Formats: sequence, structure tokens, C-alpha cells
Amino acid sequence: MRIVEKIDPWGSSALRDYAKLQSEFGIEPISTILGRLKNPSLHIRRGIDFGHRDLGRIIDAIEKNEKFAVMSGIKPTGIFHLGTKMTADDMIYFQSLSTKATVFYAIADVEAYCDNGISFSDSRKIAVQNVADILALGLDPERAYVYLQSEEIRVMKLSTIFSKGVTNNMLKAIYGERQIGLYLSALVQAGDILMPQLEDFGGPKPTVVPVGVDQDPHIRLARDLADKFREQFGFIQPSAIYHRLMLSLSGETKMSKRSASTLLTLADSQGEAERKVMEAFTGGRATIEEQRRMGGEAEKCPVFDLYNFHFASSDEHAAEVFRECIGGIRMCGECKREAASLVKLFLEQHQAKKQKFIARAEELITKGNKEISSALK
Amino acid sequence: MRIVEKIDPWGSSALRDYAKLQSEFGIEPISTILGRLKNPSLHIRRGIDFGHRDLGRIIDAIEKNEKFAVMSGIKPTGIFHLGTKMTADDMIYFQSLSTKATVFYAIADVEAYCDNGISFSDSRKIAVQNVADILALGLDPERAYVYLQSEEIRVMKLSTIFSKGVTNNMLKAIYGERQIGLYLSALVQAGDILMPQLEDFGGPKPTVVPVGVDQDPHIRLARDLADKFREQFGFIQPSAIYHRLMLSLSGETKMSKRSASTLLTLADSQGEAERKVMEAFTGGRATIEEQRRMGGEAEKCPVFDLYNFHFASSDEHAAEVFRECIGGIRMCGECKREAASLVKLFLEQHQAKKQKFIARAEELITKGNKEISSALK
Repeated sequence: MRIVEKIDPWGSSALRDYAKLQSEFGIEPISTILGRLKNPSLHIRRGIDFGHRDLGRIIDAIEKNEKFAVMSGIKPTGIFHLGTKMTADDMIYFQSLSTKATVFYAIADVEAYCDNGISFSDSRKIAVQNVADILALGLDPERAYVYLQSEEIRVMKLSTIFSKGVTNNMLKAIYGERQIGLYLSALVQAGDILMPQLEDFGGPKPTVVPVGVDQDPHIRLARDLADKFREQFGFIQPSAIYHRLMLSLSGETKMSKRSASTLLTLADSQGEAERKVMEAFTGGRATIEEQRRMGGEAEKCPVFDLYNFHFASSDEHAAEVFRECIGGIRMCGECKREAASLVKLFLEQHQAKKQKFIARAEELITKGNKEISSALK
Repeated sequence: MRIVEKIDPWGSSALRDYAKLQSEFGIEPISTILGRLKNPSLHIRRGIDFGHRDLGRIIDAIEKNEKFAVMSGIKPTGIFHLGTKMTADDMIYFQSLSTKATVFYAIADVEAYCDNGISFSDSRKIAVQNVADILALGLDPERAYVYLQSEEIRVMKLSTIFSKGVTNNMLKAIYGERQIGLYLSALVQAGDILMPQLEDFGGPKPTVVPVGVDQDPHIRLARDLADKFREQFGFIQPSAIYHRLMLSLSGETKMSKRSASTLLTLADSQGEAERKVMEAFTGGRATIEEQRRMGGEAEKCPVFDLYNFHFASSDEHAAEVFRECIGGIRMCGECKREAASLVKLFLEQHQAKKQKFIARAEELITKGNKEISSALK
């Protein structure tokens, strides 16, 4: 796997050299904090959330029953897919750990416009679907501030203020030489990440940002800015938890809207989903004979990712699939059929649930940034 | 006078090589349009507004009784001074030319924060004074949209959108190599300039931006962006009218808040103002004898600027002061005394008027960006 010199948050590489990410960029292994987590999530238990920064601060807040924020977002360029679901699952997990946790969910319509040319009104329609998805996955809307970036003046204001806290050299060091538009969207994200600490939301507080590891440059920038503007805003450096990137069904890149044909979305019909799974690239060998002898390569198999990241019924089930694969017992055909039926079952249940949340999603987006309820402060 | 290679909108040079500005940067001489203006303003008649871009579009709108916008702003870093008054006078003039003219007046608190570290709450207090000043000077508030940049999401949104329409090279060509914060504030200004053309304000329309010639880079950028985003927003390229920069009382730079001691403000006491005028640098010669023989240098005299830019009772009065000075008839002492009494008279009248507008200014700033009255659309 190619290792990029700088992590590229706008690229499609499925970075998997975790040791290097840790040694070069200072991401702590998740093991350093594992002993303090009473109910580790599926992602943490299965090594999918492999690293963190300052997650201890969040655990402190949970133990002391103090407020903290869980912040992440989505670019409303299309329907939820299994990659976005991972971040959503992590947000819902952290929200569930404490009644003092508030979720901040940014609908990045400014970026959708800038990067993908999607109009603000189209973004809004897509956002309703996205928010209904995350509600169906389990987000508690009573403790969630859902907002459109383009209507959240606080974020825009912070990003402008932050532009004075960065130098061109600092941005180049983090992102490489880029057009100003990308730098600016990085500053907008820093605004998203630090907004939960403004007085309007009750002031400085620990914040955890669950992200794919490719987004780490944004975390580093937000942490730098929290330091630079501490005197003025009292910012606490945001914490982060990093998940591995799920492989696309072709096994070549991360699962991303940029390669739509190799993507499983939460709106796929059961037929579509089944077809995509059956056509997926696998870690299988050239012949059945060879596979029986050498075992499959589960670690680079997108079908195994389906089990491990989302659909295995238990940790034991995921581990069993892994052992059977690398032991040459499990062949790709049967493995895919089992995966497909798990995916179909999930889609059936999720899509039914989601329908019930459309109206609530619409309401959250409309009301979201008009007023801040006292529960969110 | 030093001519800078690139015009620097953040610098303090009092650019006065107008021929060069016209030939190199494509600013049209005001003479090209003079025949079409029925009631030229004091600034236009006296050659203070020396150049323009596409002012014909505004005159067309006036003749056809069609809507147009007059856009400019102020950075609320301190009290109105004679430099800011020039832009205000021009705005008021264009507003007076047609009942279809709407003024957009940006309080650039984002820039005040970024460039000068002035908090948003302090900016707001200063802004009330600034707006009361422009009302006392004659702005009609019924046809004026006054807003704080930091609360105007449309401007912030446009600036973000525009960041996708510029390349680093384009910004370097216009502004030279700068920190991203300055580039961003340039994009925010482009947002200010083009906002009057959004649907919320009745859609595309001619817009005239009265500015000091040092601000031309911002005009060029906004015109470029109007072209780039025409398809989406229907923008008409904004027009501009350029005024010469008034000299500071030391004669060295433009009159600017950056050199406070050599500044006449609209809040100076009469005593202060008198002292400043009497201590001003002049275009006088080393000795009275020499001055009688060679005449004074009115064209580089800040005291003559006081007459010509603001306080001469008529064009004839200004011309007379000029002739007497260069003819060696008028000596600096008497000239300063006359100027001081004109300044004092203005200040007395202005300050009395201004007090009556404080409450209205407060109201405009508070209501300003909450709703857009139909008169502004």
C-alpha cells in the first residue's frame, strides 16, 4: 500500500500503515486508553478505532459527569454509505456514554458547494435524508445540535478569525501546497470543531471528534488553533478518535462517494446491494486449491470489512470469519452470500426505521440553527 | 512620490501618480463620463474623484429610472475622519441621484477584529458612532442597508464560494505574496461588493463602489469574480469611482487611522482641531520672501486639501485659495487660520446634528441584518 508523505484529507487513499501514522503524526494507539473505557464500542473492540488524541479528557468528563461535546459532520453530496456510517456510529456511541454529552452535527453544505458544485437548496434536500439516516442509526435528537454550515454564522466568523492565526507556511506544512479554497475549507472545519466551546453553547468543554484517519490534518489544525486562541476563547484542545478507512468494494481505495460504483449506500435496494457484494473484489486466491492451501487475505478483503466494520453479529462471529478465511476453510462464494444476506437484513430494517425520522430530520434542520435549546448549553 | 509596483490596499501610501494608475491599471479618467453627469458632485467637479470603471452603467440606470446599488463600508476601528468622510460623501451623493438607489453600508467588524484585534462588541459600539456620523452627513436611512459583516451570513457565504473562483496565482498577481488572512479579507470584501446583487436584495443590478484609489485591487478582484460567477448569480460587473487620497496633516501619507496624530476626526473638539491645523505641514517655502517669489506648493499641501476636499465654501473659493497660494499672495499662517475656522464651524454643526442620530444608528445596526425591508429589494 502506498504511503503518502502527507495525509491528504481530500484524497482517496485507504491509509492502512497505522504504525507509521502513529510514529510520524503522534496519534496515540487506542490501547493506551482501553483500560479506562467501561463499554468499548464495536469499533474499539475490533481495532477499527485504532488511535486517538487526548481521549482521556473525554473519559475524565464521563467519570466526573461533566459536559463534553461530540462533534463531526457530513458533506451532503449524496446518500449515507458504509464509510459515513462509521463516523455516525462513533458519534452515537459517545453520545450514549453520558447524559452530559451533546452532539454537534455539521451539514457541510459550504464544502459541498465549493468542492462538488452542489447548490445550497439541493444540499438541504440531501441533508434531510442524511439526518434521517443518523437518527435511524440511533442519534438522540434531544442532545444534538444539527446545523447547515452555510447558515451558521458562528462557524463562518470563527473561520475568519482563525485565518489570522495561521501562516501560509503552517498550512503548507499540514496540507502541502494547495489552492486557497481548500485552505479556507480547512479553516471552516476548524470553526466547526471549536464552535461547541463558544459561550453560546455553554463555553469551553472537552470535545471528541470521531473521524477517519485521513481527516487528521484537520484535527491537527484545530488543535493548533485552540492553543493559539486559548487566551481569547478559553478553548480546550479537542480530542479525536480515529477509525480505519473501510475499503471500497473494488478493494482499491477507501469507500467514498468519489467512487460510486464500489460503494454500498444505506439507500441501496436489497437487490442492488446483493449484486454489489457478489461482484466485490475479495482477498481470495487465484484458485480454490490455492486458497485451501494458503488461506485468503482477509486483511485486504472488502467483504471481510463488511463483516468486521458493520455486520458481523458479534465479535466472535467476526473473528470466526477471519479465522476461517485465513485458514483456507471459508471460500469467497459462500462468504459473499452470507455477507449479502446480512447487508440485506440491515437495509430492510434500517430503511423502514428511517422513514419514520424524515419529518424529525426536516424539523431539526429548519430549527437547528435558529435557536439553541438550554439542553445544548 | 514613491510609486508602489502593486497598489497596496493595506498600506499608507498616498498614491498620487494618477496617469500611471490609469495607464497601468485601466482606471478610466473621470472626464470620459463627465458630460453625462447632470449634477456632478463637489469631488467630481474638483478633480478629487479622478477616475472610474464602468460608471456609465450607473448613469444608464439613473436615466432609465432603474435600480442600482451604492456599496461601500467602514472598518469600525475608530471615529470618522476626513478620509472616511470622503467615501461617505460619495455614497450620499450617488444615493441622492435617484430614488431607485439603495446604499449598502458594511461595518467591517470582521476585518477590524482580524487586522486590529478589536472585539466584536467594541466594534459594535464604534459602529454606532460611525453610522450616526454618516446619517448626520446626509445618508437617507430609508434606502440604506447597514450591516455588521460578522452577522451577515450572505457575505460570509459568498466569500467562501468565491474562494473557489480564485487561484493562488491570481491573488498573488493582484495583492503580491500575502498571508492567507489578508487574502481571505479580500474575499470577504468581494462578498460585500457583490451581495447587493443577490436575490434577497432583488437580484442583479448595477452597483457603484466609491473608494479611495488604494482600494482598487479589491474592485478588480470583485469584477473578476463577478465574471467567474455570472452564470450562477447573474452578476453585473460592479462599477467604481475613485477618489484621490487626502494627505495626512504631516503631508507624508494618506490620512488614515494608522497615523492618528496627523488625522482630523469628526469628533475632535474645536480646540484640538484648531491646534492640529495650525501645526500641520504645508506646501510653504523656507522663507516668506521665497514664498512670495516662487509661490507655495498647493498640490502637496494638506492644508489646501482641507479646503479642496471638504471645506471651501464653493468651487470658486477653492480655486481662489489655490491661485493665491501658488501665486505667492497667500501665506501659510493666514491660510491655516482661515482653514481652522472653517473646520471648527463644520465640527460645531456636524457634532450637534450627529447627537440626534445616535438612536437611529443604534436601531439600524440592531435591525439591519435581521430583516430586509421591501424598499431595499
